[in-house]
Amino acid sequence: MNGDALLGDLGAIVGTDHAFVDDVGTYSVDWTKRFGAPGAVVVRPGSVDEVVAVVDWCRARSVAVVPQGGNTGLVGGGVPLDGEIVLSTRRLDAIGPVDAVSRQMTVGSGATLAAVQMAAEEAGLRYAVDFGARGSATIGGTVATNAGGVNVLRYGMTRRQVVGLEAVLGDGCVFGHLSGLEKDNTGFDLVSLLCGSEGTLGIVTAARIRLVPRASHVSTSLVGFATMAAAVRAVGVIRSGTDSLDAAELMLDSGARLVGEAFGVGRPFDAPVYVLIEASADHDPSEQIEMLLSGCEGVTDVAVAVDARTRRDLWRLRDEHTAAIGTKGVPRKFDVTVPVGALAEFIEAVTGRVSMASPASETFVFGHVADGNMHVNVLGGDDDEVIEETVLGLVLEHGGSVSAEHGVGRLKKAWMPRQRSTVDLDLMRAIKRACDPGLFLNPHVLLDTW
Amino acid sequence: MNGDALLGDLGAIVGTDHAFVDDVGTYSVDWTKRFGAPGAVVVRPGSVDEVVAVVDWCRARSVAVVPQGGNTGLVGGGVPLDGEIVLSTRRLDAIGPVDAVSRQMTVGSGATLAAVQMAAEEAGLRYAVDFGARGSATIGGTVATNAGGVNVLRYGMTRRQVVGLEAVLGDGCVFGHLSGLEKDNTGFDLVSLLCGSEGTLGIVTAARIRLVPRASHVSTSLVGFATMAAAVRAVGVIRSGTDSLDAAELMLDSGARLVGEAFGVGRPFDAPVYVLIEASADHDPSEQIEMLLSGCEGVTDVAVAVDARTRRDLWRLRDEHTAAIGTKGVPRKFDVTVPVGALAEFIEAVTGRVSMASPASETFVFGHVADGNMHVNVLGGDDDEVIEETVLGLVLEHGGSVSAEHGVGRLKKAWMPRQRSTVDLDLMRAIKRACDPGLFLNPHVLLDTW
Repeated sequence: MNGDALLGDLGAIVGTDHAFVDDVGTYSVDWTKRFGAPGAVVVRPGSVDEVVAVVDWCRARSVAVVPQGGNTGLVGGGVPLDGEIVLSTRRLDAIGPVDAVSRQMTVGSGATLAAVQMAAEEAGLRYAVDFGARGSATIGGTVATNAGGVNVLRYGMTRRQVVGLEAVLGDGCVFGHLSGLEKDNTGFDLVSLLCGSEGTLGIVTAARIRLVPRASHVSTSLVGFATMAAAVRAVGVIRSGTDSLDAAELMLDSGARLVGEAFGVGRPFDAPVYVLIEASADHDPSEQIEMLLSGCEGVTDVAVAVDARTRRDLWRLRDEHTAAIGTKGVPRKFDVTVPVGALAEFIEAVTGRVSMASPASETFVFGHVADGNMHVNVLGGDDDEVIEETVLGLVLEHGGSVSAEHGVGRLKKAWMPRQRSTVDLDLMRAIKRACDPGLFLNPHVLLDTW
Repeated sequence: MNGDALLGDLGAIVGTDHAFVDDVGTYSVDWTKRFGAPGAVVVRPGSVDEVVAVVDWCRARSVAVVPQGGNTGLVGGGVPLDGEIVLSTRRLDAIGPVDAVSRQMTVGSGATLAAVQMAAEEAGLRYAVDFGARGSATIGGTVATNAGGVNVLRYGMTRRQVVGLEAVLGDGCVFGHLSGLEKDNTGFDLVSLLCGSEGTLGIVTAARIRLVPRASHVSTSLVGFATMAAAVRAVGVIRSGTDSLDAAELMLDSGARLVGEAFGVGRPFDAPVYVLIEASADHDPSEQIEMLLSGCEGVTDVAVAVDARTRRDLWRLRDEHTAAIGTKGVPRKFDVTVPVGALAEFIEAVTGRVSMASPASETFVFGHVADGNMHVNVLGGDDDEVIEETVLGLVLEHGGSVSAEHGVGRLKKAWMPRQRSTVDLDLMRAIKRACDPGLFLNPHVLLDTW
């Protein structure tokens, strides 16, 4: 169908201001500029009824739709490359009042993560999902991609914060679970199924989310270890001894040195392996952490942050890794997990394997040691495909996942047949057909063939 | 097909000792004696391969199968009433070693909850799922029913403890997710979907479960409130102020008096509404709880347990509710939730409504106030159906659930069309068909018509 008729029809549903061609690429190209095609049609419904009408209209005409929140995804899952129209949820940005009695709130899918965090804070609470793109990322996008972030270790990913949600499925039906029931054991968990389905089953229009208390005491320390295995074991000991661990960030000597060279960030001591440990509780957890560490083998040094400035300096050592690597070139980035028990072996193997496969390359590994989630960054070398195969192939050899947090989108869908079993893929296809019989909702993400 | 041929075929798969007719009803009648029919055929496979072979055999002949763990369910979901055979998982009871580094373990579905708890404790950890039937209930049963229990407030129901699982689906395929990956954001969450599906999608053969640390300090107190609304609000304040709350058990004056009369259990003070509060942490949480309570309106009295004996006495007041009600007759029991914000109104309404509908009846309400989960017990009166309609109808009016923890099984399936939307039910049916195209896996639970 021609563009004018399409805009006319969609404009009649959502208002002419909200159906347009995005020539500049704000909606149709992702922020990394790797994915998308400027010139796509964008439609911005302002209500659930309008979302239903747009979905019905598209389904009837087999016009594929890419749902989009803040367009901050990293895997090309929210932008059009094959003539899809973009359905932006940004106008669905209502933020309900915080219900302090149930520690929940209902928010429209277009509300930004930052706005939701702020509303929670004003009520003396906290929304546990947090990551760098908070100012643009929307709740709907975080739900659709099951976003991770800095608090996953303690509170879990987005799926675990979602009490219920509202979504328009691919058949135009409204799926509604917003009453805020904490416990409901009547049949299949369809809310968890929609979380992380990357817009292939339905378009999230609102979510009922859990809030958490703010901790009054935070303890941050940097611990040096003689070996990777000792570091992994020690984090296990701490996790087995306390519920208050918020972060356990692993760094290697190579990465820490690079941060020092690039930005002059000092290390309180030298060690082959560092773990930055942060815990928070109603009481100062420092003593408990120290006590647990004192029983661990292979600890070479401990530096405890005694004030906000020291804490900031310790965190800079971790946080500047990405920027420090960036000063040397544009790295290939891999967001992977392996089972924690296989982590030490994986980290030791990956550098050697990549260097063998691509001798001119340099590999940096750092990340969340407690849940086995590593950022593998590879600089230099010349064969992208060989390097990807080496890193992700090694991840699969260790029973890991090629996407710990960022999702699959378009970027990683070629890996799905190796990541998930045929049984899983067939089930996903059947569920897709049940929710979206026309196969027009984000049809080019997750799998090549639905 | 005749019984001898059936036993012969199944015995050839699992061994003749493990395919038999259960004349006494151990497997074929539930422990409440309300559901089941003695004389069913029982088959006890000893390996995943044998489960596959039994499933294939049954599917090929359209012989319906009821999967069964410890047969401790409360809703008739694990026993045969319509000529099904019982597939017992009790022989799949291997308990893998505790992986202290990842705080996980792999256990066979037939292992009892008590055996798993003990293995975790021997490793200095704890399995967060716990309830009275722990000595008989199996891990597979708890996964299939998404069991709740005493630690739900802090750790969530069984679904949240499951890192991954292995199951034989209705098409005979083995679904396998046992590698212990904490984070894997590649596609639909099929593990959460299988948890709580009550044996309708597949037969759980093993689970990879999360373990939690044991808290070193426990604080227990009984708080009196002037009104229900004040009690609900105060629990909200405590939950907003600390992560360490383990239990917030609501009791009414009527129930507390009954426990006193039946068993001589004393109350430290009189109040219209009581909440028993328990918290645990690395440090004694008493001071924090007291501080939070001091900011709450409507608190009439507080009694803090200072030793193990006082703690036991406070808990007896709560724990003896069921037995105390039992001294007066056999109550109708309802395991329901409403959104926490509607809880005070619901509790105040339910007694009056039931008394109006069935004037000779007496209603007792107690339960978990923090997640809106109430036990409604109705004694006397003469019309079961009217009382059920009154209680559960009121639950639905308040946006609640007719099954907070126990599941649906056969007992509550007539309520499903009122509990879940047509959209939900249609999706459940489509998912059922994808996993179990022959519709022979536990076909008489959850829904009347698949």
